[in-house]
Amino acid sequence: MQHRVAAIGGDGIGPEIVAAGREVIDAAGERYGFDVAWTDFDIGAERYLETGELLTEEDIRELSKFSAIYFGAIGDDRVKPGILEKGILLAIRFHFDQFINLRPIKLLDGVATPLANKRPEDIDFVVVRENTEDFYVGIGSRFAGRREEKTLEVVRDLYNVKFGLDVETDADELAYQIGIITRPGAERAIRYAFDLAERREKKVTSVDKANVLSDVYGLWRDVFTEVAAGYPGVATEFNFVDAVTMWFVKNPEWFDVVVTPNMFGDIITDLGAMIQGGLGLAPGGNINPTGTSMFEPIHGSAPKYRGQDVANPLATVWAGSMLLDHLGEHEAAAAVLRAIERSILDGYVTRDMGGAKKTSEVGRYLAGLVKTV
Amino acid sequence: MQHRVAAIGGDGIGPEIVAAGREVIDAAGERYGFDVAWTDFDIGAERYLETGELLTEEDIRELSKFSAIYFGAIGDDRVKPGILEKGILLAIRFHFDQFINLRPIKLLDGVATPLANKRPEDIDFVVVRENTEDFYVGIGSRFAGRREEKTLEVVRDLYNVKFGLDVETDADELAYQIGIITRPGAERAIRYAFDLAERREKKVTSVDKANVLSDVYGLWRDVFTEVAAGYPGVATEFNFVDAVTMWFVKNPEWFDVVVTPNMFGDIITDLGAMIQGGLGLAPGGNINPTGTSMFEPIHGSAPKYRGQDVANPLATVWAGSMLLDHLGEHEAAAAVLRAIERSILDGYVTRDMGGAKKTSEVGRYLAGLVKTV
Ligand SMILES: CC(C)[C@H](C(=O)O)[C@@H](O)C(=O)O
Ligand SMILES: CC(C)[C@H](C(=O)O)[C@@H](O)C(=O)O
Repeated sequence: MQHRVAAIGGDGIGPEIVAAGREVIDAAGERYGFDVAWTDFDIGAERYLETGELLTEEDIRELSKFSAIYFGAIGDDRVKPGILEKGILLAIRFHFDQFINLRPIKLLDGVATPLANKRPEDIDFVVVRENTEDFYVGIGSRFAGRREEKTLEVVRDLYNVKFGLDVETDADELAYQIGIITRPGAERAIRYAFDLAERREKKVTSVDKANVLSDVYGLWRDVFTEVAAGYPGVATEFNFVDAVTMWFVKNPEWFDVVVTPNMFGDIITDLGAMIQGGLGLAPGGNINPTGTSMFEPIHGSAPKYRGQDVANPLATVWAGSMLLDHLGEHEAAAAVLRAIERSILDGYVTRDMGGAKKTSEVGRYLAGLVKTV
Repeated sequence: MQHRVAAIGGDGIGPEIVAAGREVIDAAGERYGFDVAWTDFDIGAERYLETGELLTEEDIRELSKFSAIYFGAIGDDRVKPGILEKGILLAIRFHFDQFINLRPIKLLDGVATPLANKRPEDIDFVVVRENTEDFYVGIGSRFAGRREEKTLEVVRDLYNVKFGLDVETDADELAYQIGIITRPGAERAIRYAFDLAERREKKVTSVDKANVLSDVYGLWRDVFTEVAAGYPGVATEFNFVDAVTMWFVKNPEWFDVVVTPNMFGDIITDLGAMIQGGLGLAPGGNINPTGTSMFEPIHGSAPKYRGQDVANPLATVWAGSMLLDHLGEHEAAAAVLRAIERSILDGYVTRDMGGAKKTSEVGRYLAGLVKTV
């Protein structure tokens, strides 16, 4: 069996951690009888600085031939914040309609959590983040387009009418941002969460702020309620996003599957990463079940550690396990996760986790473990 | 010296905790030579259920005669989420242009935090939440107004153009929410934060998501940078909101003054409340320095504990300390906070904090302490 996988190392520590992850995946393949044909893509800050290209038409055409992309990280101090993130990472998510951002929040054995009195059995849930709508659509006062002026006028009018004011039309005086949720967009994410919950502890928590942002999250709640009716065996609850940040810290054991719109998903999964031991251990999958999906550590490119072979590869290796799951290699995926757990218990870890091993050493160690663990 | 203060007990446990808070404030007045004339307002779920009234013209006219409102909590199981919050709490904040929501995050001596290895000296900062703009303006697809259809059309067009789609105009298929940040609105909140930092540790952290929601938070950052230039003695940094939730948990000692737009402020102050020991200990001030300000516990009305005399009044009493500060009674304000600390060390606390005292007992105890502590 051969799988073809695209690899985007990206910037900073990205190439090193992806190299480690590939080694582990390849070793798992040897054990479980599959082979991965890797195709490298040179996408990231370097190319952008040289050619001005972010994600090109050709990148898209070529990437669309793969069902999985293994992604390192992007971000570079020489580029203004937002350019690479929007032009590459979000562009891939949106272009390939990767409507699910899947984030396991799981405290592995032997990992230190900043929370007092919480053990691995207390922290084990999954966040399903909607990944193509909400305030990530990138529409607002600075969005270049021929309708620009007309919108600014309309929004300004609404604002002035609502508050009885008379603010200038000037985009520099009044900035606006438009978030959008569509019924089909909400539905497919919520349905995914319920399907997942049926295979887990059968509980779904919707996180929103429908008491204040009632326009978009009101629709989200309506759709949630409708979808829930089709899963009578799954328990449901609504949490407001402000409150949920408290419960993640106080009662993580309450959660099984959490489903939430894009922006709140971004926020609560970083908090989730921290309670599971930090960004060094947090993977994510950007999933389009019938198209091209992308698996990545959720941390950034840490430019200052670039080329030093010190970055913690575990989040990337874990993302590799999710990638294998996505490819249907469930046994291999489980073995990779067991190898990660084993290496942590062995203390064979990088500096950030209290060890002294190099990125490449951890990769090699895990590649060895995955063949037997 | 006499101060006139408006009191809105509100719903659920609201009246009980405000009663406790008033007792403490009155006692502080005896010691520090001022007297508070309280005026009660009957605003909340009961009246709404009887008369359909939320915040009336007359309420506004009467409340505007006060420079401070002491607010308990609103919220009732018989009313749909959002109605009372928007119709009363947010209505007061917006109507009286209470553009600052001030939230001390401070772990008091003797209080348990859910964070491992953090002590009172590690958790002591202030969040300045902008309180009248951002996604709280309440403008979106369900906002009733004569321009409704026109906006829906424009937003739908933008969305379709951007993504090459052809989504229906139907508001039930496509919901949108518009957030607005104005230059003067951002500026006054940010300036307040810098002025505060000058009286503290001289560091301001701006929390936004300018890498993705670049339209509104791009303007926010521009204004932040401009204002910062006028405070060369104050250190500054930018944090993304997702990352800041991690640092609150991992490194709360980094922060001095945190300034952030309304919605992210809502989220991170709940997380802040949890690290300082939970909602039972988290006060907030909604401040208009030249108008009518409002002080409240940030927790809700906990309807199921209504009338049982078991609710923890400490957040409300602490809000009372902030109210006294606002009225210029700085010594009394400090004494109230000392009394709270004393009562905690004495173990004279309610059930949620591991004690066995009633709401009214704690109020009485604090009123006694505040005269000598
Ligand atoms: C880098 C940034 C654009 C991205 C996001 O906001 O989605 C990141 O925070 C993430 O969670 O993957
Ligand atoms: C009750 C709700 C409308 C309110 C808010 O979102 O501002 C609350 O969460 C708060 O923080 O005061």
